[in-house]
Amino acid sequence: MKIAERISNLGTETAFAVSGEARAFAAAGNTVYPFHLGDMNIRTPDNIINAAHQAMLAGKTGYAPNAGIPELREALAEDVNRARGSSYTAANVAIQPGGKPVIGKFIQAVMNPGDEVLYPNPGYPIYESQIEYYGGRAVPYGYVPGDENFRLDFDALEKSVTTKTRLLIFNDLQNPTGAESSREELEAVARFAVKHDLKVLCDEAYFDIRYGGESVSLSSFPGMEERCVILYTFSKKFAMTGWRLGAAIGPVDIIDVIARINLNDESCSNHFIQVAAVEALKGDQSGPRKILEVLKERRDLGVDILNSIPGISCYRPNASFYLYPDVTELMEKKGFDNYETFRKDVLHKTGVSFCTRLHFGRALPGEERKYIRLAYSGIDADLIRKGLGLLKEYSQK
Amino acid sequence: MKIAERISNLGTETAFAVSGEARAFAAAGNTVYPFHLGDMNIRTPDNIINAAHQAMLAGKTGYAPNAGIPELREALAEDVNRARGSSYTAANVAIQPGGKPVIGKFIQAVMNPGDEVLYPNPGYPIYESQIEYYGGRAVPYGYVPGDENFRLDFDALEKSVTTKTRLLIFNDLQNPTGAESSREELEAVARFAVKHDLKVLCDEAYFDIRYGGESVSLSSFPGMEERCVILYTFSKKFAMTGWRLGAAIGPVDIIDVIARINLNDESCSNHFIQVAAVEALKGDQSGPRKILEVLKERRDLGVDILNSIPGISCYRPNASFYLYPDVTELMEKKGFDNYETFRKDVLHKTGVSFCTRLHFGRALPGEERKYIRLAYSGIDADLIRKGLGLLKEYSQK
Repeated sequence: MKIAERISNLGTETAFAVSGEARAFAAAGNTVYPFHLGDMNIRTPDNIINAAHQAMLAGKTGYAPNAGIPELREALAEDVNRARGSSYTAANVAIQPGGKPVIGKFIQAVMNPGDEVLYPNPGYPIYESQIEYYGGRAVPYGYVPGDENFRLDFDALEKSVTTKTRLLIFNDLQNPTGAESSREELEAVARFAVKHDLKVLCDEAYFDIRYGGESVSLSSFPGMEERCVILYTFSKKFAMTGWRLGAAIGPVDIIDVIARINLNDESCSNHFIQVAAVEALKGDQSGPRKILEVLKERRDLGVDILNSIPGISCYRPNASFYLYPDVTELMEKKGFDNYETFRKDVLHKTGVSFCTRLHFGRALPGEERKYIRLAYSGIDADLIRKGLGLLKEYSQK
Repeated sequence: MKIAERISNLGTETAFAVSGEARAFAAAGNTVYPFHLGDMNIRTPDNIINAAHQAMLAGKTGYAPNAGIPELREALAEDVNRARGSSYTAANVAIQPGGKPVIGKFIQAVMNPGDEVLYPNPGYPIYESQIEYYGGRAVPYGYVPGDENFRLDFDALEKSVTTKTRLLIFNDLQNPTGAESSREELEAVARFAVKHDLKVLCDEAYFDIRYGGESVSLSSFPGMEERCVILYTFSKKFAMTGWRLGAAIGPVDIIDVIARINLNDESCSNHFIQVAAVEALKGDQSGPRKILEVLKERRDLGVDILNSIPGISCYRPNASFYLYPDVTELMEKKGFDNYETFRKDVLHKTGVSFCTRLHFGRALPGEERKYIRLAYSGIDADLIRKGLGLLKEYSQK
């Protein structure tokens, strides 16, 4: 069948090819150390599973309202207000079948064809895909190494603004870098958004995946609540990636439009899962605490071993479940200039599977250092130890 | 925030306003007889609920592949082949978060802006909305009264074709009319699609909601499998409306594109629900049989009472869970020319809540008879008896 022309503008996540290669390598009888997965190998807490089961038995198996059940919209507004100092109500919340749907729906709701959209690169590849699919122009901004973590390349951000710039996509506690903006940096971004009258998608998928300190939302700065839509997800904090539940949180006029897109696209999000999500937010919090403990142990182990490997250096991010080490010297030493041949060499010689910088966008002009991304959400501590140990041996050969 | 221009082309389901009015009327202390709902008040069968619970406990709480888990894609291909005589494999199936998502994704995958799309009117309002949202031209075709049921207005369909016609949306066992095409009519539609080289969305949401005889798929006629995408849903047969699970089934090239849209829009459909859907297809079938028995009793009761009311006449459809009685004489007798004032008068005087023809599209030129739609999926037999009894009293006043 002949495919519509618009599909040629639709991107993908090239990281799925890495999963496929890892599966094939494992199927051939090899041990794979899966650092490429953004998925979690931790089960959803029991109280949430139990709440979903009880809701099914209670007959919560029929349609829910397009924007979600009122109890969940209200509980989520309260939860978000507690952590961000905001004043949202249920009317500011549209429940979604995942966090990801907020990206495309935000773009559909506020971007016109020809609008320029500033988006992070390296970053989650769906931003660029959805901007271009709906006829916008995707304009990347980057990150630069700082003292204790990456920081936003604010100069580059400012220089990228033109008279056509309308939207900013911002992902603090960033995938893939783990970058975290200081309060000063957040203030500067907020002033920048107000100055240029930008609508902002605050992708806060990792807001609650934090091992020290407190997350601060860009939406909490002056003039921001009326121009921000927050991408919220239940996936990470509650280990619910495969449940597919999230929300768009923002000004009522945008939320109403997003709910109308929901009505057209999928009617509503699953009913009994929404009931379970109320339990997730208001019930026993020992589950998410335990998840954070497990992830923190993995982070520290990963960072310590990586920094013991000659030719690799790695920050210790306070948030997210990603490490984004600089492997420039290691690649040089092993004679690689190309990310893909390096990645495959490591996979085939050690079983360690990861994504590289190129799975998160094309390299920016002047970008000279080389980076890979290791996710520790889907791999246990003992396999982290063994896998990175093999990487260390590899580096010394 | 300023809304994007494309949103002005996005339609809605006006039937939701009817639900709101019914809720308000009930909240004021009145009894409402809910015939307006396309939802089901029957709980999902126990074996499916149990399978979902077991899958959660077994840790099926992480991401699933974009197009669905292989076991479900395969089980669904087999099930569809058994009922339709087709030869689909897992590669022809993309699992979706509901049946509805197939509409927009099919249109995105194969329709270019400016293409003309033939769609049923009266019909599910999302067809027209999605065609226009993605820049197509929505061209309606209608139904005419036949001996035992409505039949397609095939003459009108043929006259609507232009050099720009590219797609046909076809919903046999139709919502709202309950219309069912004879084998001859299906053959004629298939020849028509081949002759004009149309891509076809076969909305088969009600394929398995049948009380006698056998459903026949348009996709099973010569030349059709390569040009049809079937909209499949778990919602009706298994009373899983609120679970949100369905599938697009068709040629591999289209299915691959639809899965790429899934990857961008929502990553995947819920994992443990897909495991439960395998149980729905392959496990104990007493649940869906019982659902059909309940629905058949309601249909017969509804049709019998409606036909006993002067000024109303109603077919007895073999499939779907809708009745679409002709109420022309009743409206005349009660002095109404306007659907909305009639609908509200009945609601306020009897508590009987239903949708009218206008909730399924604008009336076509020359359309003179008046129709309302009663769904019996969300109302028990005793309330059908009471509600339609009150409608009968109302008709005699």
